[in-house]
This record gives sequence, C-alpha cells and structure tokens, in this order.
Amino acid sequence: MGHDFPGDSTIWDDASALDKAHVFHSWSAQGKVHPFEIVSGHGSTLVDGQGREYLDFTSQLVNVNIGYQHPRVIEGIVEQARLMCTLGPGYANLARGRAASLVAKRAPEGFSKVFFTNAGADANENAIRAARQFTGRDKIISSYRSYHGNTGAAIAATGDWRRKPNDYSRGHVHVMTPYLYRSPFFAESEDEECARALEHFEQVLRFEGPDTVAAVLLESIPGTAGVMVPPDGYFEGVREITRKYGILMITDEVMAGFGRTGEWFALDAFDYEPDLITFAKGCNSGYVPAGGVIFSDEVAHAFDERVFPGGLTYSGHPLAMASIVAAQEAMEEEGIVANARRVGEKVIGPGLEDLKLRHRHIGDVRGKGVMWAVEMVSSRDDKHMLDAATMAAIHTKAKESGLLVDVHDNRIHVVPPCVITDDEAKAGIAILDEVLTATGC
Amino acid sequence: MGHDFPGDSTIWDDASALDKAHVFHSWSAQGKVHPFEIVSGHGSTLVDGQGREYLDFTSQLVNVNIGYQHPRVIEGIVEQARLMCTLGPGYANLARGRAASLVAKRAPEGFSKVFFTNAGADANENAIRAARQFTGRDKIISSYRSYHGNTGAAIAATGDWRRKPNDYSRGHVHVMTPYLYRSPFFAESEDEECARALEHFEQVLRFEGPDTVAAVLLESIPGTAGVMVPPDGYFEGVREITRKYGILMITDEVMAGFGRTGEWFALDAFDYEPDLITFAKGCNSGYVPAGGVIFSDEVAHAFDERVFPGGLTYSGHPLAMASIVAAQEAMEEEGIVANARRVGEKVIGPGLEDLKLRHRHIGDVRGKGVMWAVEMVSSRDDKHMLDAATMAAIHTKAKESGLLVDVHDNRIHVVPPCVITDDEAKAGIAILDEVLTATGC
Ligand SMILES: Cc1ncc(COP(=O)(O)O)c(C=O)c1O
Ligand SMILES: Cc1ncc(COP(=O)(O)O)c(C=O)c1O
Repeated sequence: MGHDFPGDSTIWDDASALDKAHVFHSWSAQGKVHPFEIVSGHGSTLVDGQGREYLDFTSQLVNVNIGYQHPRVIEGIVEQARLMCTLGPGYANLARGRAASLVAKRAPEGFSKVFFTNAGADANENAIRAARQFTGRDKIISSYRSYHGNTGAAIAATGDWRRKPNDYSRGHVHVMTPYLYRSPFFAESEDEECARALEHFEQVLRFEGPDTVAAVLLESIPGTAGVMVPPDGYFEGVREITRKYGILMITDEVMAGFGRTGEWFALDAFDYEPDLITFAKGCNSGYVPAGGVIFSDEVAHAFDERVFPGGLTYSGHPLAMASIVAAQEAMEEEGIVANARRVGEKVIGPGLEDLKLRHRHIGDVRGKGVMWAVEMVSSRDDKHMLDAATMAAIHTKAKESGLLVDVHDNRIHVVPPCVITDDEAKAGIAILDEVLTATGC
Repeated sequence: MGHDFPGDSTIWDDASALDKAHVFHSWSAQGKVHPFEIVSGHGSTLVDGQGREYLDFTSQLVNVNIGYQHPRVIEGIVEQARLMCTLGPGYANLARGRAASLVAKRAPEGFSKVFFTNAGADANENAIRAARQFTGRDKIISSYRSYHGNTGAAIAATGDWRRKPNDYSRGHVHVMTPYLYRSPFFAESEDEECARALEHFEQVLRFEGPDTVAAVLLESIPGTAGVMVPPDGYFEGVREITRKYGILMITDEVMAGFGRTGEWFALDAFDYEPDLITFAKGCNSGYVPAGGVIFSDEVAHAFDERVFPGGLTYSGHPLAMASIVAAQEAMEEEGIVANARRVGEKVIGPGLEDLKLRHRHIGDVRGKGVMWAVEMVSSRDDKHMLDAATMAAIHTKAKESGLLVDVHDNRIHVVPPCVITDDEAKAGIAILDEVLTATGC
C-alpha cells in the first residue's frame, strides 16, 4: 500500500509547510498550531528559519541544561554513532556502564544501580513498578500539583505474561503539597505550611490504609505546576512518615535534576534520602532521548534473585549513553551547576524581585538556580489569576522582542539553560521588564 | 550530596565490570545477569569485546531492520547532530517534517499526519488516547497473545489537568486471536480458525457492550507472542465488525512494520484499513529512540479544534527524525524491503521447513519475510512445549557457534536484519541445524 503526497516534492524544503501537512502536535488543537521554525542554536540562543536569534528562557521543555550545541556532547554522540548506534538492553557496553556510573555517583551513598529509560514518563513508570513489586502494595500517592509524564495504558493493553505483574487497577491517590502563596492549608508561614502539609499527608495515608500504599512519588521541586520550592522539613517529614509505615519514597528529579536548581539533584538541598530517584531531561540535556531510575541498593537487591518485570527496547541506548557521559563530564569540568546557582542567586532572583517592585501584577516570585516562576495576578489583594489574554500577550511580545519564555496558566516560567551568562540573564530580564510595561502589568 | 565509587577508576574501561556494578537490567533477576559485551557491528554481524563476530538472527529486540552501522543513517545522525541535537515538540523543523512525510506515505491513502514518540509503548499509549478521546469510550480490546509495551501509570500519578482527560480506570479487555497450531477455538483449518476467531471477537464485544469500546488494538502479526500470521479474512472481518459498532481499529506495526515481513507495513498484505497505525523499531532501526502514531485524516481532524491531551518531551526529536529520514531513503533506494521478502521466500522459509523435516522436535514453522518462529515440542503428537533446559541449551550452543537467536518459551525466533544476504541466512540455518542435532532435537 502506501501513497504519494502529490504536493510533497514542492514542500520538501519548507519546514513550516511540512509541519502543517504531516506533523501531529502534542497538547494542541491541530488547527491552531502556527509553525515556528527553529533551525539551530548555540549556548542559550536559538536561531529561527530566517536566521533571527532568540534568547531562550525556556530550555525547550526545561531540558537543555547544558545549552544548545555543546561541542563536547555533539562529539560524544558523533563518536558513538560511528562505533555503534543501537544495542539492545541485554548486552554490556562501555558507554552504558560509564553513563550508569556517572549518574549513580550524583545520588546519595548507597545508590549504585541505574535502570535506563527513554525519558521521564517511563522513568516514573519503572520506579512505580519497582515500588509496587518491592512492597507488594498497590497505591501510589502523589501531589495534585505535579506532572510525572503521560503514559498509562500500554501494559494494560498487553496480553502476555508481562502484563500480570503490572496489573494495578486502583492505585493512585493525590494529596495537597506545600504552596504557601495559595496555601491549601490556610497557613500563614512556611513553618505552618510545612507542619500542616505533613499532617494532611499522614491523615490521607491513614484513611487510605498505609499497608495499601507502595510509595509516595513527589517532584523534588514541582516544576510545571509552578516551581514551589518545598519548605525545609517537608521532605524530611514525609521521609519519617513513610519509614514508619514501610512506604517507599520516589523523588522525581526529571525536571529539577542535573543542575537546574544549582545542585546536581534538587534533593541535595534537603536532608533526606529517598528509595528511588527518577531523572531524564538534564542528564544529557535531551540531546538524545534518555531517562532512568537510580535504585537504592536495598531496592535493587530485592531484584537480585527475582525478575524485575519491566523493560523497554531502547533501555540504555548507546547514543543516549554517550551523550550522558559527555554531558556529565562537561558539566563537572565546566562548573555548569555552580554557574546555575550563581546566576540564580546573583542575577535572576534579584532581577525578578526587582521587577516585582515595579510591576503591580506580579504576585509572587519563587525559585532557585535557573528554575523560577513569576506568578501574575489581577491584584495582589485578591490574588486572582491574571487573565489568559494578557498572559498570551506577554508570551507573544517577548518573542517579538527576541525572548522566549514559558507561560503556564498565570505564570511566567524563567528556566534558561544552566550555562546562561550574567549578561544574558540581565538582558532577558530587561526585555521582560519592557514587555510587562507594554502589556500594562 | 553524591558520592564516589572508590573502585570505579579501576573499572572505567571494563564494560562488564561497570555493567555488573551499575546497570540495572530489564526483565531480569539482577544476580543472574552475565554481562556479554558488544562493541560494534556491521550489516547482520555483531562484534563482541574480544573482537569475535556473531551472525545476528535477533536484530536486537527485532528492531535493526537496516542492519548495523548503515553508513547513510550514521551520516544522517552526524549531520543533524552538528546542526541541532535537541528541539521541543512545539517548533517546526525540517528533519521533523520530512520524517513525518516519509512515514505517512507508507500508510494507506488518507493518512497524512504523524505524532512522534520515543518508542513503541508510548506510540500505543497515544493511539489509545486518541481512540478514547475520539469515541468518548473507555475500553480497549486486545489479544492475550500480544505485547504492546510496558507503561501504565505515569499519567495516573500525575496530578495536574493533564491527568483528567486520560483517566481511564477500567478499560482493558483481552480476546483470543488466531493461532491455528494451538487453536483456542478448536479449529482444524485456517478458514475455520478465522471464522471462529471473528465470532469469538464479536461475542466478547457484545458481552462488554460495544458502546463502551473505544478501539481494538492488534499487532498486525503478533511478534513476541510467536509470529502467528493471521489468516486471510481475519483483519477484514474485524474491520467490518468494528465499523458496525463505531469502534476504532489500531494496528500495532511496532515490530512488524518497515520491512520485517517483506512489506513496508505488514498490514499491506491484508485488505483493510485501520484508523491508527503505531510504529517504532524498524522506522529507523532503533539508531535513535523513536516511534509514533500515524493518524487517519478522520481521526486527526477530530483534533483540529480540540486539544489532543497527550505529549512528551522528546516528541519529534531532531536526531531521531534525521535517522528516520536517512533510514527511509536508504531502505527505499537499496530495495531492503524486497530483500527481506526474497530472503524469506527463497531461503529462510524453505530452510526452516527443511529443518523441520529432519528434526522431530520442531512442531511448527511459521512466518514471512525476516520474521519467523520455530516452535519446539517434546513430541509432535502431544505438542507439549519443549523443556526450558533444552531451549536454553539451544540458545547457548548457537551463541558458542557464532549465531545469536531469540528464544521465547519453547520457540526459536529467527528475525535477522532485513539486509541479511542469502549466504548469511543459509549459514545461520546450517548452524541451527547442527545445534538442534547437538541438543538432541
Ligand atoms: C517532573 C517531571 N516528571 C516527568 C516528566 C515526563 O517526562 P517526559 O516528557 O520525558 O516523559 C516531566 C516532563 O515535563 C516532568 O517535568
Ligand atoms: C508489537 C510491539 N508493540 C510495542 C512494543 C513496545 O515497544 P518499546 O519497547 O519500544 O516501548 C513492542 C516491543 O517489543 C512490540 O513488539
């Protein structure tokens, strides 16, 4: 079968026309997608189809921590491509072993093994699977204000034996997590927010029945949900409660990990150790699709004699592994994590706080490293979310001024690459300043 | 935080030691993994850590259709790596548009748009999602003898709005599908098997309530389950029944697609059109993780004004797209699909049938192109599955003789790259012959 697209030869070099004709887009109404062609990039800069440059405050989907076209990562990929592009998960391979070693060493002591996946969703899938198998329990508690990926049916559709150990039909419970600016607990201070969030968590746990709960899965800093840095003591408290009931703790570092918060893992800023850590994006800045789960030795050893019932064709893909090795080495040697921390403390944080002083529709500024949210409100008194039209105008005007920002609901997310320079960060914030003025904020 | 692995510097160049220390393996008891290092490959040959060569009858996880280290695909990746390694799904990009166009043109008329994913599981996830959204119904019917990927929880764990349109808690029903050698319908001919399978399918459908069923998801040729080529008329019958009840049909071409069966899509050998086609593996032979869903225009247009509630960070990843473009062009120009068909008809099919004449423990031989299963039985009369120890011995002895084969339960899967030559196929079958003799089969 198959067929020709009669018009295709004429659009073969037209990215926008091809996009309109043949690409089905995520999270979109297809008729409302306006193709915006990007051809290349360097550092924190993107280059469009007309050669125009944009300063990137988005890092794509918050994944390009190391910046665009880092030469060392490119060469790592090219070298591996010339040696061996594809290899199934069953084999040993130097790039794979090295990548696992470099990733695991960023986790706390006692985390030695890495299960690789293609991205963040399947990292969480496999962490959840491990927790359910380890505990023999079903439920997973997570936060309403969270995003953990978008898979949920393939194993249930599967008919063969691999479905059976993965057959969990009930099993997902959501709780409220700390968000002082709009406290779900009616708290007025960080301490109060923390204490009440923990009490709420334990209450829900007890109503669900702790012995039905396999794990709690939490982003170390909720990302897309709005960069709510948890108060000190929250994770430590959750850890204490979960230990009391024999429940595992999975920390989702997919967005926050590998430099984004000015730490290797965002959890490094807190004083607890989870049982499983999931990662993706920043591990190789998405140069090749990759993610994974870092196992605590205790959980890993539970599968020494017993089959771990999970897998995927491209687990430990050689090009992905080579890109992880190169990215990890470059990040270490070039001090990229420290740069993210410094820019956050010295430029972005103060810069956004300064905007808040001068723009009355900014309700809240929060974040760390190169992971920030600016929450826009119609007035600081009622905290009503700023209207969608103004938010869209901010997005468009920034783009016209050469700055790409993420807009989620009533928030501007400022999440540039970790390699952004002070001058670039200042220039971006200056554009944002003008845009906020121009849009009446 | 983070920590050093004191021994690591000493094992930094030892793939097997790194593997043992740091890689958590899929579908395995970790204590029973014996690292087997593969360094490189070419065509249908793999090269291990000692420089020893193996003829590969596995194509890794049945994904390396174009063979190892195809120069054109490598160069496609290298070129794109030097231009732009990573780009979010929201943008238009030439490689992405071209890949979508080349993939869509292999589908029937009226399939124009492609939604890209990282692999096969998430391709099925998004096809299922599209079917549920399109029909407003919940259930998905698939076969017990099937594998569709290993994801099932990340979206249920997600708290934000993206969970809501994806919240399906019931929703998976399994049916029996044609398998004449061990007929679940007690049939004695292909025609009878087909007619009864269709009757069974419609019965289950009616018991479930057709208006609760969104889609039926079927591999065009069940792969891991044992390469059961469906009888003529089966898919046509399923199509007729699904149309009657307004149910979508999703064909999973993840393993069978892009040359494996000697057709571009395995469904080309039948006379029906599904609503959605999922693909991965063969589209770029896994040189970069990639997969996707090809949408019929009818289903695609349903999302013109309405948001498709699915997405993933690496949808349409530039390196994956470049590898698809290069692989598709090379497969077309080098006649690789025709080669798979010819080798299957002229060498592998007859060769395996010949083995069956001389090895009494071969119960059944079936397949097409470069997708074959040899089913081993303790005796042809009772058809009991040959014991696991002998199956393991076959696997090991073949490897010792320089041939890699897949063993699933009591079956040897013969699934070499589509580029395998007649001589290689003959040589591999000759080794298998000796191995079967040596293991008393
Ligand atoms: C915290 C978190 N977890 C998981 C995911 C899912 O990752 P992916 O899109 O690579 O599947 C994301 C994606 O944005 C994320 O931010
Ligand atoms: C028919 C079929 N569908 C889906 C999948 C899942 O693909 P992946 O492992 O890339 O997620 C497979 C994998 O073997 C498969 O054979």
